[in-house]
Amino acid sequence: MPGGGAPEVRDPGFRINGPRLLEDIAALGEVGRTPDGGVERLAFTPADGLGRDLVKGWMEAAGLEVRVDGIGNVIGRRNGAGDPARAAVMLGSHIDTVGNGGRYDGNLGVLAALEVVRTLNDHQVETGRPLEIGAFSNEEGSRYHPDMMGSLVYTGGMGVAAAQALVSPDGEGQTLGDELAAIGYRGEAPLPGPVPAAYAELHIEQGPVLEAEGLGLGAVTGVQGILWEEITLTGRANHAGTTPMRFRTDAGVVMAEAVLLLRRLATGIPDQVATVGRARLWPGLTNVVPGRVEFTIDLRNPDPARLDEATERFFTGLDNAAAKEGVTVARRELAQFGPAVFDERVISLVEAVAGHLGRSCRRMPSGAGHDAQMFSRVCPTGMIFIPSVGGVSHSPREYSSDEDVVAGGNALLLTAVSLLAADGPPTSVRDAPAGASRRE
Amino acid sequence: MPGGGAPEVRDPGFRINGPRLLEDIAALGEVGRTPDGGVERLAFTPADGLGRDLVKGWMEAAGLEVRVDGIGNVIGRRNGAGDPARAAVMLGSHIDTVGNGGRYDGNLGVLAALEVVRTLNDHQVETGRPLEIGAFSNEEGSRYHPDMMGSLVYTGGMGVAAAQALVSPDGEGQTLGDELAAIGYRGEAPLPGPVPAAYAELHIEQGPVLEAEGLGLGAVTGVQGILWEEITLTGRANHAGTTPMRFRTDAGVVMAEAVLLLRRLATGIPDQVATVGRARLWPGLTNVVPGRVEFTIDLRNPDPARLDEATERFFTGLDNAAAKEGVTVARRELAQFGPAVFDERVISLVEAVAGHLGRSCRRMPSGAGHDAQMFSRVCPTGMIFIPSVGGVSHSPREYSSDEDVVAGGNALLLTAVSLLAADGPPTSVRDAPAGASRRE
Repeated sequence: MPGGGAPEVRDPGFRINGPRLLEDIAALGEVGRTPDGGVERLAFTPADGLGRDLVKGWMEAAGLEVRVDGIGNVIGRRNGAGDPARAAVMLGSHIDTVGNGGRYDGNLGVLAALEVVRTLNDHQVETGRPLEIGAFSNEEGSRYHPDMMGSLVYTGGMGVAAAQALVSPDGEGQTLGDELAAIGYRGEAPLPGPVPAAYAELHIEQGPVLEAEGLGLGAVTGVQGILWEEITLTGRANHAGTTPMRFRTDAGVVMAEAVLLLRRLATGIPDQVATVGRARLWPGLTNVVPGRVEFTIDLRNPDPARLDEATERFFTGLDNAAAKEGVTVARRELAQFGPAVFDERVISLVEAVAGHLGRSCRRMPSGAGHDAQMFSRVCPTGMIFIPSVGGVSHSPREYSSDEDVVAGGNALLLTAVSLLAADGPPTSVRDAPAGASRRE
Repeated sequence: MPGGGAPEVRDPGFRINGPRLLEDIAALGEVGRTPDGGVERLAFTPADGLGRDLVKGWMEAAGLEVRVDGIGNVIGRRNGAGDPARAAVMLGSHIDTVGNGGRYDGNLGVLAALEVVRTLNDHQVETGRPLEIGAFSNEEGSRYHPDMMGSLVYTGGMGVAAAQALVSPDGEGQTLGDELAAIGYRGEAPLPGPVPAAYAELHIEQGPVLEAEGLGLGAVTGVQGILWEEITLTGRANHAGTTPMRFRTDAGVVMAEAVLLLRRLATGIPDQVATVGRARLWPGLTNVVPGRVEFTIDLRNPDPARLDEATERFFTGLDNAAAKEGVTVARRELAQFGPAVFDERVISLVEAVAGHLGRSCRRMPSGAGHDAQMFSRVCPTGMIFIPSVGGVSHSPREYSSDEDVVAGGNALLLTAVSLLAADGPPTSVRDAPAGASRRE
């Protein structure tokens, strides 16, 4: 990638085989298919192993040299014509799913990368740099924290030994390493992995913006910063019939104030989102004033200063409401991650590719976490979004149209070809501290 | 009871044996004692059977004729000197408890009534009318609905066959009738039972008012009307990171509006209490906007017009908030019970007795349901409250001081003696429709 501006768009003059990509998505969606048409391949489970076997077989059939590392990342390499020591361009995502998830999510990024390789093979294209495609382990974090674990370990943010030693949530004294071995994916490839020349990832938006604005593609500018906390409010449980209002210290009332305060804040701060998704009342009986409430907050903003502002204003307001009611506040941080900012040159390239393909496009931050944010710490990185119908994800109803999937695949093809044609070593390596936990 | 004003206070010149009453409360509290000092004798369970055996034995030892009816009410009769056909004065309450409840609650009323009998025996007092003491089944409603079942069936509000046919919540094809037979309390005494000349019940307040106001006794004016509903709000579950605020229909936000609306309403309407004690969010994940919320409301007011006003204003406000967010509202009534109004003559008598005993006293409605409200439909009825420390009830921490317990027992003694001395048939029989369900 040149030191200057964004790489030029290089159009190889051919396009991906759309039906082949759609068939692969359908075929992988059959592995771990749930009764209502969803997919469940939780990381490191036997279903994940079956999904890996299928994708690894496809990589090998496409002539890739496949390596597996100690966290189970499956990397397929297509060698370049030039110096084999030159850094590869990497395309990737993940094939693990949440419980009863959809068939697009990470699968799209891995299978579109595979389709790019096949398309280059079909047209007997030689590239200067190697091209690598990665299926990174445990992006979802459904069974082991943190999420995006495979790309985190690959990029040096977490040690492989520490990851392998994590205790299985399904008990029986197993570890993550044991589970990897059981499905045949505790590999030996070196970690951290070789730093790519650039990294690009295709993904569904998982949100409603592109569809609502009638746009075809998103050029992702980065990933929002995130704060998750669990808040416990303690008041006094009392009989709902015999306790006059003036004698109450009702933890539920303070939680209600918190929910509305968060809504007001998020509406007033640019790009802010805020959610109370989980709440529990004690004792949880119709006729007892809730003496204790536990609830979570999820705050996100691509601008760290605004995220801090939202957080500070929220807790000031919460403390005031709690003091007024006589309720105490206890906080526990569940996850915290600073925003990831993608490389301006890759963002511009994605925009230019979209224009070249005649697709409308906008720049947008990602609301969810992605493997790309781990790579953005070590090499020029970008992402391409395609619309999610209804903004639905992590659900059997997750869907993107065939047209959008194929257009996304072609955008990835042109982005990859353009990055492969760009010269020079990676010139923009951000050195953000790695290892903090966050979740999608 | 005379047709005119309140009966005069008749002081027999002696008082109850306080230590004996306190010993009985302690002894009954050992039956079904829980590890943390609470008591658990859920209606119709073997523990309830053991509690009944103890109390029935004490009744017999006190020379009472004991009868058991088909819903398991245990009634002890002390005959009067006059015409045996004359209606009895009845004192009563219940000895079933909630899960891990306290040792006072209904036990106090039954054991204080027993102590009144023993005291009259000790002093060889003959009364004109018979005196009956009742331990009514399943007042708590913890296993079978409705609560206050024993007194409801006794006063004709529910058929005994229907009650016996209720299916056990613990499965195995058992019915309530089978469980009663298994513990030996499916009796043959006629139901509905004979209408008493008057009914009086001593109970702990279960609320904080008497303690907070430094008062010794409460002259209960009636039981609040109550409305329980379960409300389901349906919006759209969405990803907390990728869904901008303007695209959300968040059921949790509307629930928060409802909680605060209820708080404002209850603070503004005299004698109103309102509680959201139970709430559940779906899918209940930190990173998903809650697409569905289920919560309960508990509204109570001694004045039915005010209760209606609170209900109507609440649902109007809820509908507005829901419409603004695009959330739908579904309602399900769980329980509804009009207020019970006690007999002015008995209320005045309790006040006069308190004054005679030198105890400060106030009139107050009961926030919780009691067996007395069933009797208030058929005969002149009143209740005496003693302070609950911290307003705590239905908890191992439920406590009333020995002094207050003994004072309450003496108030019951003087009330009973005064009612027994009053002449004439019951003159105030309210004919409220019975059978509606409500819970404490």
